[in-house]
Amino acid sequence: MTAAMEHSDVTPSFFYDFGIVREKVAMLRGALPAGVGIHYAMKANPLPAMVSAMVALVDGIDVASGGELAVALKAGAVHISFAGPGKRDAELESAIRAGSTINLESETEATRALSIAERLGMTPRLAVRVNPDFALKGSGMKMGGGAAPFGVDAERVPALVKRLIATGADWRGFHIFAGSQALDSGAIADTQAATVALAGKLAQEVGATPPLVNLGGGFGIPYFAGEQPIDVAMIGERLGGVLENRDSILKDSKFAIELGRWLVGECGIYLTRVVDRKESRGEIFLVTDGGLHHQLAASGNFGTVVRRNYPIAVANRFGFDVEETVSVVGCLCTPLDRLGDQVGLPRADVGDVIAVFMAGAYGASASPASFLGHSPAREVLTKV
Amino acid sequence: MTAAMEHSDVTPSFFYDFGIVREKVAMLRGALPAGVGIHYAMKANPLPAMVSAMVALVDGIDVASGGELAVALKAGAVHISFAGPGKRDAELESAIRAGSTINLESETEATRALSIAERLGMTPRLAVRVNPDFALKGSGMKMGGGAAPFGVDAERVPALVKRLIATGADWRGFHIFAGSQALDSGAIADTQAATVALAGKLAQEVGATPPLVNLGGGFGIPYFAGEQPIDVAMIGERLGGVLENRDSILKDSKFAIELGRWLVGECGIYLTRVVDRKESRGEIFLVTDGGLHHQLAASGNFGTVVRRNYPIAVANRFGFDVEETVSVVGCLCTPLDRLGDQVGLPRADVGDVIAVFMAGAYGASASPASFLGHSPAREVLTKV
Repeated sequence: MTAAMEHSDVTPSFFYDFGIVREKVAMLRGALPAGVGIHYAMKANPLPAMVSAMVALVDGIDVASGGELAVALKAGAVHISFAGPGKRDAELESAIRAGSTINLESETEATRALSIAERLGMTPRLAVRVNPDFALKGSGMKMGGGAAPFGVDAERVPALVKRLIATGADWRGFHIFAGSQALDSGAIADTQAATVALAGKLAQEVGATPPLVNLGGGFGIPYFAGEQPIDVAMIGERLGGVLENRDSILKDSKFAIELGRWLVGECGIYLTRVVDRKESRGEIFLVTDGGLHHQLAASGNFGTVVRRNYPIAVANRFGFDVEETVSVVGCLCTPLDRLGDQVGLPRADVGDVIAVFMAGAYGASASPASFLGHSPAREVLTKV
Repeated sequence: MTAAMEHSDVTPSFFYDFGIVREKVAMLRGALPAGVGIHYAMKANPLPAMVSAMVALVDGIDVASGGELAVALKAGAVHISFAGPGKRDAELESAIRAGSTINLESETEATRALSIAERLGMTPRLAVRVNPDFALKGSGMKMGGGAAPFGVDAERVPALVKRLIATGADWRGFHIFAGSQALDSGAIADTQAATVALAGKLAQEVGATPPLVNLGGGFGIPYFAGEQPIDVAMIGERLGGVLENRDSILKDSKFAIELGRWLVGECGIYLTRVVDRKESRGEIFLVTDGGLHHQLAASGNFGTVVRRNYPIAVANRFGFDVEETVSVVGCLCTPLDRLGDQVGLPRADVGDVIAVFMAGAYGASASPASFLGHSPAREVLTKV
């Protein structure tokens, strides 16, 4: 047990190792064609210290609300783009004032943004979020290919862009997001190829070069047994070929990919302490001081149909042999609060610390922190 | 549209009508046998104003954490019981100091509670939470009948109670909770009968009369089309018969039922305003200023396998004919954020207000309020 773990107030906590983020970005930069930017979708982990560290490491911060915009600005971000349905007038105004790029989600949002900019006497930076006519195959969450609340259907995009240009707005290009959390590298590469082709086709219809084409993300991480990391080298190589052969109208366009989960998901670990060890009708339960109020996704209650265990271990017995099969539950008085169902672990007793891995994305900020009157988890960013 | 709805800052909000709670309690008191108490499980809606109003209306407040205990005490609650796995030492100490009844979840928790009480020089009020050997049939969440992290397996309870009595603790009785959110009135009545029988059997084995038998709850409310409210009159009548014929050792026991969702679920309405109205490939989307960060359960992402729509309406067009089929989505940049999937509604435009019903329980406090940098919803309790 490390010194830190001996203090009972260390749990429940998230620890994020920024060294891992730095390594992933370096690997990705090595794989991507020169000039393809990396954006951080801060919804994955909006901890202000994380966003600040990212500002220095990547090429842009993507925000999804006025609240995230404020955090990004405070973190010193300069290249900010704002996507998300249902932007309110006050959010559009903040983004225009900050000089951020707004990824427009509809024609009516465009009208509102233009009217707010006019009132402010400012030139708004506007891109169009495109609802493509294809989806990212095998993606955990499909975000394109059919009817969607996100973006403007591809077929209506050229008319909207022409209108933006005609009004004198600073048209920043396209944002095309076809899905997320995919582990099929071939499908990701196919989707990037289709995205570049769609951007070329739309640009031709508009008759203008988009300054930036945001290719979206979709890079998944392996949460569950048997899953494999994506092949970033292959994806980068294929994207290189696609960009070499891109439509001439995109010759001076910049390209970026937007990643949240892939950048930060693996850097995080959730630590929770065993408060009780119980046996009930032949099963062993380790009851911890954490739970789904901090790590809803690990409990299987967020965006998953079939519950599977996140990787889990006894943090102060790394490398010990598996000795028993137990269920690790949280301290919430609901059967939903299960962090590990029938997992093989070394023996753990009261006071031992359970580690749930893959906790860097969509953990603390995406969980019902005040459920049942418990407190938020501590969050610590290290190796910045 | 009411005057309140005309102000754009009124949304997103929860409105709770305490008049409905008062009516339900009155109906329940009319149905239950004389002397059966009603406890409020405040986890369902921990808004301090709600808890304060409940203190005056019901016979006890059940808490699930030290945080809830603090709210209950501040609300003036005197009869408090505390159930929940993974109680920390500080929580046990607070409960003992406050004179609250602790529903013990395990033998080791009993040992910790006794030792803390000894250190404080106080007599602890201790009940035993029983993991029964049966479950509530058709319950939304099974909490008994097999291995469970909740309570002490029924077969081990007598030994624990004898130990508590031997140490001089103030033994308060049994807490037996077999499930929740059941809509089968016959199954609820059967479970109550089995619970009273189990309490009698355990008391005989102990050789002492439990001062209180908490029969648990399990009363569901109809969220979805085709579901019917439970028949409280029938349940009360059957419980009357069961109590008349109870084991003589329970003659001087008090009984209580513990309800959360059934008391408050129907009193709440969630109001969210349409920010955008979009068409995408033939489907209409109403994009609102609310979403799953306030009403996770309504999005189908909390404790449900198959997503179904909560009752939903255009609040400023009550009574209007259905004119179109739309999907109502929230403002979060994720496909999970859907409050109504393909629902028939009168036409709604930007500025109109959507009402999601059945929002009084497990809404604001059970949702990831800070997800994507949005703010918590306003909560207003009326007709107290």
